[in-house]
Amino acid sequence: MKHGIHKLFLKLSIRLVVNKRVFLALIPLLPFFSHMSSMAQPAGRDTVRLSHGWQFIRHDMANTWEVWRPVKAGKPESVPLWQEVTLPHCYNALDAVDPDVNYYQGPAWYRTHIHVANPYPQGRTLLVFEGSGQKTDVFIGQRKVGSHVGGYDRWQIDITDAGHGELPLAVRCDNSRDVEMIPSDMSDFNLYGGLYRPVSLVYRPAAGVDDVRIDATASAVTVTPLLTGNSDNTLITLRIYHPNGKLIHSQQQRGTACGRPMHIVMKRPQLWSPDTPYLYRCEVEAVADGQHSTVSRHFGLRSYEFREHGPFMLNGQRLLLHGTHRHDDHAGVGAAMTEEQTRRELHQIKQMGANFIRLGHYQQSELVLHLCDSLGLLVWEEIPWCRGGLGGERYRQQARNMLTAMINQHRHHPSIILWGLGNENDWPGDFAEFEQDSIRAFMSELNTLAHQLDNSRLTTIRRCDFCSDITDVYSPSIWAGWYSRRYTNYREMSQQAIARHPRFFHAEWGGDSHAGRHTEYPTADGRMPADTEAGDRNGDWSESYIVRLFDWHLKEQQSMDSLTGSAFWTFKDFSTPLRPDNPIPYVNQKGVVERDGTPKESYYVFQSYWSKQPMLHIYGHSWPVRWGKAGQTREVLVYSNCPEVELFVNGHSAGRRQRRTTDFPAQGFHWDVCFREGTNVVRAVAGKLTDEITFDYQTATWGAPAEVRLRTLDEQGDTLLVEAQLYDAKGIRCLDAANRITFSVAGDAQLLDNQGTSTGTRRIQAANGRALMRIHRSGACAVGATAEDVSRSGLLVLPE
Amino acid sequence: MKHGIHKLFLKLSIRLVVNKRVFLALIPLLPFFSHMSSMAQPAGRDTVRLSHGWQFIRHDMANTWEVWRPVKAGKPESVPLWQEVTLPHCYNALDAVDPDVNYYQGPAWYRTHIHVANPYPQGRTLLVFEGSGQKTDVFIGQRKVGSHVGGYDRWQIDITDAGHGELPLAVRCDNSRDVEMIPSDMSDFNLYGGLYRPVSLVYRPAAGVDDVRIDATASAVTVTPLLTGNSDNTLITLRIYHPNGKLIHSQQQRGTACGRPMHIVMKRPQLWSPDTPYLYRCEVEAVADGQHSTVSRHFGLRSYEFREHGPFMLNGQRLLLHGTHRHDDHAGVGAAMTEEQTRRELHQIKQMGANFIRLGHYQQSELVLHLCDSLGLLVWEEIPWCRGGLGGERYRQQARNMLTAMINQHRHHPSIILWGLGNENDWPGDFAEFEQDSIRAFMSELNTLAHQLDNSRLTTIRRCDFCSDITDVYSPSIWAGWYSRRYTNYREMSQQAIARHPRFFHAEWGGDSHAGRHTEYPTADGRMPADTEAGDRNGDWSESYIVRLFDWHLKEQQSMDSLTGSAFWTFKDFSTPLRPDNPIPYVNQKGVVERDGTPKESYYVFQSYWSKQPMLHIYGHSWPVRWGKAGQTREVLVYSNCPEVELFVNGHSAGRRQRRTTDFPAQGFHWDVCFREGTNVVRAVAGKLTDEITFDYQTATWGAPAEVRLRTLDEQGDTLLVEAQLYDAKGIRCLDAANRITFSVAGDAQLLDNQGTSTGTRRIQAANGRALMRIHRSGACAVGATAEDVSRSGLLVLPE
Repeated sequence: MKHGIHKLFLKLSIRLVVNKRVFLALIPLLPFFSHMSSMAQPAGRDTVRLSHGWQFIRHDMANTWEVWRPVKAGKPESVPLWQEVTLPHCYNALDAVDPDVNYYQGPAWYRTHIHVANPYPQGRTLLVFEGSGQKTDVFIGQRKVGSHVGGYDRWQIDITDAGHGELPLAVRCDNSRDVEMIPSDMSDFNLYGGLYRPVSLVYRPAAGVDDVRIDATASAVTVTPLLTGNSDNTLITLRIYHPNGKLIHSQQQRGTACGRPMHIVMKRPQLWSPDTPYLYRCEVEAVADGQHSTVSRHFGLRSYEFREHGPFMLNGQRLLLHGTHRHDDHAGVGAAMTEEQTRRELHQIKQMGANFIRLGHYQQSELVLHLCDSLGLLVWEEIPWCRGGLGGERYRQQARNMLTAMINQHRHHPSIILWGLGNENDWPGDFAEFEQDSIRAFMSELNTLAHQLDNSRLTTIRRCDFCSDITDVYSPSIWAGWYSRRYTNYREMSQQAIARHPRFFHAEWGGDSHAGRHTEYPTADGRMPADTEAGDRNGDWSESYIVRLFDWHLKEQQSMDSLTGSAFWTFKDFSTPLRPDNPIPYVNQKGVVERDGTPKESYYVFQSYWSKQPMLHIYGHSWPVRWGKAGQTREVLVYSNCPEVELFVNGHSAGRRQRRTTDFPAQGFHWDVCFREGTNVVRAVAGKLTDEITFDYQTATWGAPAEVRLRTLDEQGDTLLVEAQLYDAKGIRCLDAANRITFSVAGDAQLLDNQGTSTGTRRIQAANGRALMRIHRSGACAVGATAEDVSRSGLLVLPE
Repeated sequence: MKHGIHKLFLKLSIRLVVNKRVFLALIPLLPFFSHMSSMAQPAGRDTVRLSHGWQFIRHDMANTWEVWRPVKAGKPESVPLWQEVTLPHCYNALDAVDPDVNYYQGPAWYRTHIHVANPYPQGRTLLVFEGSGQKTDVFIGQRKVGSHVGGYDRWQIDITDAGHGELPLAVRCDNSRDVEMIPSDMSDFNLYGGLYRPVSLVYRPAAGVDDVRIDATASAVTVTPLLTGNSDNTLITLRIYHPNGKLIHSQQQRGTACGRPMHIVMKRPQLWSPDTPYLYRCEVEAVADGQHSTVSRHFGLRSYEFREHGPFMLNGQRLLLHGTHRHDDHAGVGAAMTEEQTRRELHQIKQMGANFIRLGHYQQSELVLHLCDSLGLLVWEEIPWCRGGLGGERYRQQARNMLTAMINQHRHHPSIILWGLGNENDWPGDFAEFEQDSIRAFMSELNTLAHQLDNSRLTTIRRCDFCSDITDVYSPSIWAGWYSRRYTNYREMSQQAIARHPRFFHAEWGGDSHAGRHTEYPTADGRMPADTEAGDRNGDWSESYIVRLFDWHLKEQQSMDSLTGSAFWTFKDFSTPLRPDNPIPYVNQKGVVERDGTPKESYYVFQSYWSKQPMLHIYGHSWPVRWGKAGQTREVLVYSNCPEVELFVNGHSAGRRQRRTTDFPAQGFHWDVCFREGTNVVRAVAGKLTDEITFDYQTATWGAPAEVRLRTLDEQGDTLLVEAQLYDAKGIRCLDAANRITFSVAGDAQLLDNQGTSTGTRRIQAANGRALMRIHRSGACAVGATAEDVSRSGLLVLPE
């Protein structure tokens, strides 16, 4: 019962879980991780991850006394009701993609009790927040002990004064709309609220080493211990370990010299690169007043250059940057991605063959950067100054603070090559006035600040032509075939940009695709997808179109010698408040995987161009019914990086094709074949690899949708996958219908909805006349599906 | 589509509906309304009720520019999405009783465009808010033009400076928890948010009469014009009309004398009383600089007295106060009750026979007071200083302001006899400290202020024993049979209070009852309901118990010669954040009618004692299945104020009973009869009145609930009433089961839930093993019902 929560809370037996640094099994092609630890952190006993035993409430409290006053069951103090949560926790995990509401933007509270037992005599006790949205106040009991503005950088509070033992800890987060903050609410992503990154209790000795600054080149490293307290009696020991784990260097410093930079020239450096992400490790140990403290960090040795008008050079060799983007966002959790989800996503990106990622549009977690280091993904990381215009001094100071924090906190990562200062700063709207001069001036200020903080890296922005000359590298907006023109215009548009900008990189291209929506080409009106101008407005948002758009770009890019590289937008579908009317409401569907990581067809297009691991994939695994006339030829595409593929249709060979990277589509792996009415089996074979799909071929044509029919497609334990299919008045499937379908459920079951995916969205546009929904059931239930402009709804009764 | 809203808004064709002063047909026994206007208001052309063309959003905006900036469809400016609403509007209309959430407490915005066309040269333009929750800021375009704190008093803003024509009007309401405000969040009612009372645009001339102050006794009235502007050239005309509509007095004042009080001795006064609520009308017309302005108000002539140690005297005669309470709260609308709903409720109260009402716990709308005047209900009106303790200066100033506003705004109502200063101020909790002395001091201050503002009325409080000597009248807490002791202890407990307190009134008594829950008395263990001590904790919250509790109190009260009167808590079930675990979650179920006005059985108990209109009601209209052994006698109760009732069971007379007001229960109208297995018909006849019920009699006994079964009970157009009934493993109805039942619906239908009623609550405790739910359907659908601790759920499939 609800009122029981409070009793439980008062009796709270705090479970404090030490960060165990659990690692997932890493993919076999990357043997470099054996000696790494996850990130720069003190030893285990010094850090207590505060994950469990929290309570949460999604509105403001009347005062801090109300957070802590004694609770009497059934009395006014027992409400409002708090809920038990585990950190990380994002309070927009579900409502960000709820089709029926604006996502909650306002204050919320967390509370727990922590047990402080600092092992160091006179040691310091810190609360470390790896990121919390978007403004945060921290209270020990009723006393405010600290605050932070900004949702993406790491920050900490010294709570040593609060003493030892059991302490009541409350945190107020607030993601209210606030025009004097960045990011702007005009940004194309949610300004999430909550403690969506880890919170830790950290113990440090009164004096010792807290962090190290690392400045590495391709042949040397400078290590600067960052000390706290009086260092008169301190002894510093630096040890450097080779990527193979061997100690290769050791030195000591004493007393006032302790904090001095130590410069080490590396013999036979093992250079870091996407293919060989070798990581050295440096360990700095301090002994001060008998207390030991140690900091360990990885670093890499590499050099890079954006040549004027291209290309990009890494360690003296050209590297075409194969890039993508990511948000901290995932189905079911919002920004509170688990470590496992983050690892899985970065591995998926690596397996796609990417060597570059732009972390759009804000500082991401230490774990993300660590994975980029260890997997070999070059990084553009940026601050969230996006759209809306330029605010006043509070706004500007936050931007400066965030840039400073990002650079100071992430400068040791060898993966990072670009500091991003802004995105689409030519986009007005948050203020009645919009002044280009002010924006230029502030951009210049940030550019200078970035170079002052880190003169080893370049700065960049995307899309603000009136600032294009300010940063070192610039990306204009080129969305061939999506927001403007046709994808076949891509080379021309890019070559112009290469010529115009001294250092051009192409960030953001691609387009939306609704997972499971497919089109037969040529279409009934004879149109081929390259004919689609500005697909955003004029296209069908099908996977069929988007694979061709990507395919064309990739074919062109590989032969553009001056191109530094590009990053398509974006790896994974993500939540955004700006797109309530998308096929999946409130989801930016430009990902090549769905919001839960399920690959769309386009994932394989990239893999076929970029990956070195042999792969083979027939287009259409999510296309259960194709259509056309009897005897009409239909196109089959196979994405593969193998030299040769043979296709079999219903057991008969349709011929072999050789990979020709200049051939379009699918690098030559395309066949025109005839299907038989009813079930067809298509198989592709490339050496030892095979792929096979089974689907129906429908020759009957259809009228307007008149009915929704439901059936169970799959059942995994208590979880069912249900399909709603639109039929016309004659009972023929409507294979191009896009009506919005709404699911509901009655009885012993729940919709597994508000996921922002093609199988977890309560109200979703049909893809080829159908929509899918997962439900969890524990007894008799009924699933309903209604469709816009369709009079007859579907009802699927599932007895016990 | 959602994004279409903004287009619509920009094209907004404002529909400004003039307050038409529509009146419902009034009940025939009250012929006094023919000449009344609804309240003191300027003439029709001067007041424009702003009801339509509003948009609403339930969170804060980033700045006021964001409220008004141009909207481009599909662009960031088009979100967050606003919804179209009509005023009055309460933004907790549904979530206050949603079993799954804490009700929203935070900011929200309204916006519209108003067309200002002031007919007076140099006239003043006002925005008048009859009450808005709980803090309000008003903006014309981006400019803040006014603010108000407090959710219950009328307030206005002069917007003359904003000029004429189409003006953008935005209003920000905020009901965030705030300990430095009254009412406290510890109050047993929701602190609703929104523009839940009317908002009007009012035009006034530059100089003229804005209001009148009326001070009436039983034989005279003093009318004081409240003027604005330079009155040098003003001519005032006062006209007084008799309740029969005839002009009985007229006089004029000029120039500087205009604002002087006019004292009129009334000849042959028609005294106001609950039985004869005669209302005089005074009209004050001002002519200033050629501009006319008029104010019209009703008043009544009466005197009253709380004699020391009782009783209460009205116009020199004893009147036993038959009282109840009400909140501004109703199913489906929260505080935004329509005028029709308010009228219907006050009429229901009058028809029950009440002559007194305590408006708990805050100033109510002018309409409510007007209805009390015209229907004949004496009033205790109070400020919402309830529970939690005493805040600082901001808190205190708000309390003073609210007391001042209540008295100044409502002093002309003849119905009001008591100004309430607080409720349960002995209840701590909002602050770490609780000081009786400070509370006493502030109570004294308020008491003095009330007397200064209005020396013709008495002050009162309920339940704060350490302040009982401060106010004129005092009500201690006496809840016999509910929060303490047995109901049979009532007389003794009250007599002690009468003796202890110089002027005692008994506010708040009664108890909760879950509509549709009934018990056979004596129960299986032989217990009669009077045996139940502290029914709140120990009772079954049945209607069967509560009718006896009420019945006993009413029987006793009629023979207590010193009793001034009482007011049971409360007329109607209402929403409260404090009671998440009630049978209907978040509903205080102490009403004698449900939250939508549906009478419970107890309504008729009051009517049988208090009403003078003949009435007859058999207990058990909502009791479809009674139970017992074959041949066992069962009790039948009839509530009636008729002298004699005859009962028929299955066509056979069970005998006549005479009304004996000292007999219990039901003033002697009780029979012990035998029912037959299966259907029974019981009819009562009293003169020309008859009442009849049909029900099943079940002799089979039952085990633990094992199954929920669903069926359609009733169908009215598209609206169905569905019943979920619990059965044991052998298929026998479980007639005492109280398991919590949860309804759900799939397909072309909606639950009509979040009403806080026995037929509109998604998760509700079973009453006699059953629960009801209304659904709206438009096609094929299924209704589900699961029950706590019951393995087998119900599923009702309703084909197209």
